Amino acid sequence: MNTIGVKLRLTIFGTSHGEGVGCVLDGAPPGLAISLKDIQRELDLRKPSVGIGTPRMEEDVVIPLSGVKDSRATGGAITLFIKNADKDSDKYKEFAFKPRPGHADLTAVMKYGDAHDIRGGGQFSGRMTAPIVAAGTIARAMISQIGVGVGGYSMAIGSVVDKEEHPFGDIVHFGRGNEVRAASEDMEGRMRKEILDAKADGDSVGGIVRCIATGLPIGVGEPFFDTLEGELAKILFAIPAVKGVEFGAGFRAAAMRGSQNNDPFVISDGRVATSKNDSGGMLGGISDGMPLDIKVAFKPTASIAMEQDTVDLRSMKPARIKIEGRHDPCIVPRAVSVVEAAVALTLADLCMRGGFID
Amino acid sequence: MNTIGVKLRLTIFGTSHGEGVGCVLDGAPPGLAISLKDIQRELDLRKPSVGIGTPRMEEDVVIPLSGVKDSRATGGAITLFIKNADKDSDKYKEFAFKPRPGHADLTAVMKYGDAHDIRGGGQFSGRMTAPIVAAGTIARAMISQIGVGVGGYSMAIGSVVDKEEHPFGDIVHFGRGNEVRAASEDMEGRMRKEILDAKADGDSVGGIVRCIATGLPIGVGEPFFDTLEGELAKILFAIPAVKGVEFGAGFRAAAMRGSQNNDPFVISDGRVATSKNDSGGMLGGISDGMPLDIKVAFKPTASIAMEQDTVDLRSMKPARIKIEGRHDPCIVPRAVSVVEAAVALTLADLCMRGGFID
Amino acid sequence: MNTIGVKLRLTIFGTSHGEGVGCVLDGAPPGLAISLKDIQRELDLRKPSVGIGTPRMEEDVVIPLSGVKDSRATGGAITLFIKNADKDSDKYKEFAFKPRPGHADLTAVMKYGDAHDIRGGGQFSGRMTAPIVAAGTIARAMISQIGVGVGGYSMAIGSVVDKEEHPFGDIVHFGRGNEVRAASEDMEGRMRKEILDAKADGDSVGGIVRCIATGLPIGVGEPFFDTLEGELAKILFAIPAVKGVEFGAGFRAAAMRGSQNNDPFVISDGRVATSKNDSGGMLGGISDGMPLDIKVAFKPTASIAMEQDTVDLRSMKPARIKIEGRHDPCIVPRAVSVVEAAVALTLADLCMRGGFID
Amino acid sequence: MNTIGVKLRLTIFGTSHGEGVGCVLDGAPPGLAISLKDIQRELDLRKPSVGIGTPRMEEDVVIPLSGVKDSRATGGAITLFIKNADKDSDKYKEFAFKPRPGHADLTAVMKYGDAHDIRGGGQFSGRMTAPIVAAGTIARAMISQIGVGVGGYSMAIGSVVDKEEHPFGDIVHFGRGNEVRAASEDMEGRMRKEILDAKADGDSVGGIVRCIATGLPIGVGEPFFDTLEGELAKILFAIPAVKGVEFGAGFRAAAMRGSQNNDPFVISDGRVATSKNDSGGMLGGISDGMPLDIKVAFKPTASIAMEQDTVDLRSMKPARIKIEGRHDPCIVPRAVSVVEAAVALTLADLCMRGGFID
Repeated sequence: MNTIGVKLRLTIFGTSHGEGVGCVLDGAPPGLAISLKDIQRELDLRKPSVGIGTPRMEEDVVIPLSGVKDSRATGGAITLFIKNADKDSDKYKEFAFKPRPGHADLTAVMKYGDAHDIRGGGQFSGRMTAPIVAAGTIARAMISQIGVGVGGYSMAIGSVVDKEEHPFGDIVHFGRGNEVRAASEDMEGRMRKEILDAKADGDSVGGIVRCIATGLPIGVGEPFFDTLEGELAKILFAIPAVKGVEFGAGFRAAAMRGSQNNDPFVISDGRVATSKNDSGGMLGGISDGMPLDIKVAFKPTASIAMEQDTVDLRSMKPARIKIEGRHDPCIVPRAVSVVEAAVALTLADLCMRGGFID
Repeated sequence: MNTIGVKLRLTIFGTSHGEGVGCVLDGAPPGLAISLKDIQRELDLRKPSVGIGTPRMEEDVVIPLSGVKDSRATGGAITLFIKNADKDSDKYKEFAFKPRPGHADLTAVMKYGDAHDIRGGGQFSGRMTAPIVAAGTIARAMISQIGVGVGGYSMAIGSVVDKEEHPFGDIVHFGRGNEVRAASEDMEGRMRKEILDAKADGDSVGGIVRCIATGLPIGVGEPFFDTLEGELAKILFAIPAVKGVEFGAGFRAAAMRGSQNNDPFVISDGRVATSKNDSGGMLGGISDGMPLDIKVAFKPTASIAMEQDTVDLRSMKPARIKIEGRHDPCIVPRAVSVVEAAVALTLADLCMRGGFID
Repeated sequence: MNTIGVKLRLTIFGTSHGEGVGCVLDGAPPGLAISLKDIQRELDLRKPSVGIGTPRMEEDVVIPLSGVKDSRATGGAITLFIKNADKDSDKYKEFAFKPRPGHADLTAVMKYGDAHDIRGGGQFSGRMTAPIVAAGTIARAMISQIGVGVGGYSMAIGSVVDKEEHPFGDIVHFGRGNEVRAASEDMEGRMRKEILDAKADGDSVGGIVRCIATGLPIGVGEPFFDTLEGELAKILFAIPAVKGVEFGAGFRAAAMRGSQNNDPFVISDGRVATSKNDSGGMLGGISDGMPLDIKVAFKPTASIAMEQDTVDLRSMKPARIKIEGRHDPCIVPRAVSVVEAAVALTLADLCMRGGFID
Repeated sequence: MNTIGVKLRLTIFGTSHGEGVGCVLDGAPPGLAISLKDIQRELDLRKPSVGIGTPRMEEDVVIPLSGVKDSRATGGAITLFIKNADKDSDKYKEFAFKPRPGHADLTAVMKYGDAHDIRGGGQFSGRMTAPIVAAGTIARAMISQIGVGVGGYSMAIGSVVDKEEHPFGDIVHFGRGNEVRAASEDMEGRMRKEILDAKADGDSVGGIVRCIATGLPIGVGEPFFDTLEGELAKILFAIPAVKGVEFGAGFRAAAMRGSQNNDPFVISDGRVATSKNDSGGMLGGISDGMPLDIKVAFKPTASIAMEQDTVDLRSMKPARIKIEGRHDPCIVPRAVSVVEAAVALTLADLCMRGGFID
């Protein structure tokens, strides 16, 4: 369903081609400073880029409907709304009986029947991530008060993989300044080319978002089941197109030996730390004081310009489909903001549940 | 916390060295056949193997405390209990101030203080997965009634990776008959060797469990947030030592182009299917009728015989630790049953939530 | 927090004097007919009446923001918004340090601090019940499809108590046609006088709302803890000013003997029924097929024209307070719609949880 | 279902005539002192009394299965188990097709089918309250650490109503020392007679439990929906035989005027208080610092010795039923402990949610 979180609870609503999209964020501490400017800045980072993305210009202006007074949270539920621009929805009608490969058309129609709003993907649209980004900005403000920072970047776009470690400051500063959300100038150029090449072919590419969270105290996470990893993974897999989530060494750990994978404990600045971070900042489902290291795999955009095989659900016969219009050849740069928001929301909720906030 | 699920709700309790471990499973349909023999068989598959595992012989005999009468679920909460054998707990005392690398000793002590039961890892012990396996057997019975089968195998052990596709029948039949839970005779030999080599070195290895679920109807999963992927990932990351979860092409999808990754729809046996399954059986957070394809990365066992670097929390100085006793050089074969159980529990719950069961 | 329900989940937001109030209703079956006209009619029943209420004219026009397309539920979250009219909020500032007796001023300020939006009572305002009524109309449509009807009336206003049993049709038809929501003409006159007398004295009166639900199948309710009674009581006590909830004989049952209180089972129209209904339609937390009989006690409106004793939180000294403006001398007639909505929402959710709907 | 609570989460299991009854209490703070002696003492207060109750002697000995080590909570889930004595279950078989008036036989059989364990009422048995009392003792220990005390007494037994106000100390000390749980010697005698009279007639009586909670800080309760009243009412209505719940003036408030019902604020001992407590310690769903005043109406025991009308579900014809064996002529004295436990559990959970504990 459309609600997630325990103490900080997010409910999202809306569709791509209806009135708009929005969210209700419940549980933010009364008195918290709410900056609409900050929310707008994050929403702008999620917007499609002219250069590499689609020329559809979304005017994502956030409108607060409740819970904010004099730029502060009142303690009541915070509602944020983002209006949709007028859109041409006619071209989507066909998808109700000729499902687009890689999209939720088939599963949505099977689950919700003919009442499903298929325009723009309806409630399965990537546009549903805009309110997540808006709410995530508030969550960021909450955790920044206890010194937690969250920063993501495009770690891979198609075959271009960034294998370097970057200082957190570079991720935040350089990464937010370029439209592919690369962490270095070299990567920015190569990733941009990878995207433009796919675009030129009428195709799309996937990629990996890496997200680092620094400053988290030891003890965040509520095992056995409400682990730090599990709560993060649950919301991350709700982001459209996510196919894999790993922490620290992740799948690489499977090929390791214990002597190699175990992170030795050391004393650093008078505090317990580990000399490396293959655990990704988590032990036993609980933060261990090292930076969280999260990697999220995105499949390539399902909407491509090439004609594809599908079936006609009316005749139950093979059919061909060609998706008109312009679509992002790569959603990864835009997804960086969404991953950051999802991580911030989860950390804020778990910090509240563990008594680290409030 | 220790409860998961909405309509089928699992609560686990216990510790490695206390009275025992157990679970309460709430919501199983009244009248469901409950076979203690089946539960016992699954628990036996989770037990350490003499050949490749540790010689600790756990007598995991399941005792039903409630909810079962005349081998049927009554509709009340089902409680299953598994007694612990007497164990030597003295050697664990040291870990409260000299945390074992890769273990939850540090994070548990920081979160729960000196009341934490550190014996055998306490509530963070891998032994907590025994009641998950027991409950999972009941979930399997539930979903098998609507034709869903769940089968897992060791897809990778250390550097040995099984890249072949195996018929579901082979996975279930061959895989359950060998103690490394390999899907082929060739793999069985090579994986066994990989484990024994690590053991001979006083070391451990990680691996990957792959789990397939067949027969799932279209429509299972409750987006936006309670997706099939997300609910599976949440419980899978609760299994100790899991570092990554992916579906279908997973992280490989990140390097693909859309034209390559999209699964074309086809008509097969008069029903809609896809001609390949890079989506792993899910579109938009909902099952699409193809087999679920789940991969779970396990890090190598943290307990190794080699001496390791740690810190002494009393003096806050570097220290060395040597973990006595015998430990599984590889938990992956045992984890196969746990992954299967976790998948079965999640599918049963989501099938109930979606109205496919009951 | 601001969300309630499991399968049909309601989130409310807003404040009395902010942008507006609204709700997100998640889980309504896709395809369900949604009539804005019906919602508006229910909202109008909740509005203050010119004759007996306050002359404040609230323009409660419902605006759908999501989840409805072509007058049908899409399967996505349904968002309804009701704008606030401009209001004079200045007079409320004083209440932050001179709390009004019987109001939530003190507790809200202690819990939420100076960020609490005290204008109009903020998130504690009776106006928060408007979105509950709006959502309740959708819940009514859901349960009416399985033959369940919900009807309430003013059973007591101050000292005027309606001790008669009324046919369900009278409750619905007569009760909705008079502004005190009385179930008979006699009661209408006497209750109106009771309210006007209190009003003339600058005072207020309380009362009892009785709500009947007919046509509920046997089996609704999820014991042990999610009982029909318990789920109803939880949402009913969320309605401002509710001080008591009872079912069937309720508190009268405490003075009865078992031979008198037990409802004998009989065969009626070929089905099992009871010859009387002191149980109020519930046995063991589960509906028994008889009409639900719910009584809800409301305290008198806390805002009265008379000067009252309070304290000044700044000086921590005794103080006097006089509440300006016009307030409902009795909220019971308006509360009938709210109780009906709360009952409908709870029944719809429990019917979904029990598999009676969908 | 069988779980309640958010931060302090109780799951109960078992049946009257199976292996036993028990509970899992999750979330108790690590390090909390757990006294099995205290738990046993509370369980003993819930046991039937020889003098006025049934001569069935239940040996309710609590066995801790997890979560307690060296008399302290470890931070893991606490499991408590109470074995059932051998019982004659044969006489219950008839109730599956000849439901006892006032019991859950009919509704349980309709909901759970023939798998329902009807012996002793199965999961609907009053015996399910034993683990609630056990868990409640732990909750009491939690809230007593912040100065909260909970005390209940029999306020009414049948027609005998105790209209006096009693000092909290009297309730706790005198009330726990007499088997009718009366608050005064006079009431003890009259209530005992009322019970014995009913017993002599082969009948039963109902009554009212009043429960007071002192020392609660201002701010406990999570509106809009998770109010102090609503959370209390939800668990109280789960107690078998409860038909009404009210707070403060309760149903009396319905007949009051606002000038009479509003509790004026005063300064008392340098703190804000109210000069009377018709609100019952709650304003806007939040504790206001005054004692909580809770009244719970219990219907008379449904099992009576007299022959009663019922139906035969096999023939769908009228039938007569005579319930053999001895049953409590009044459960109210035993229910006092259960109400206290339910209140303590709810307050402990809400205090954790509000940050007042831990």
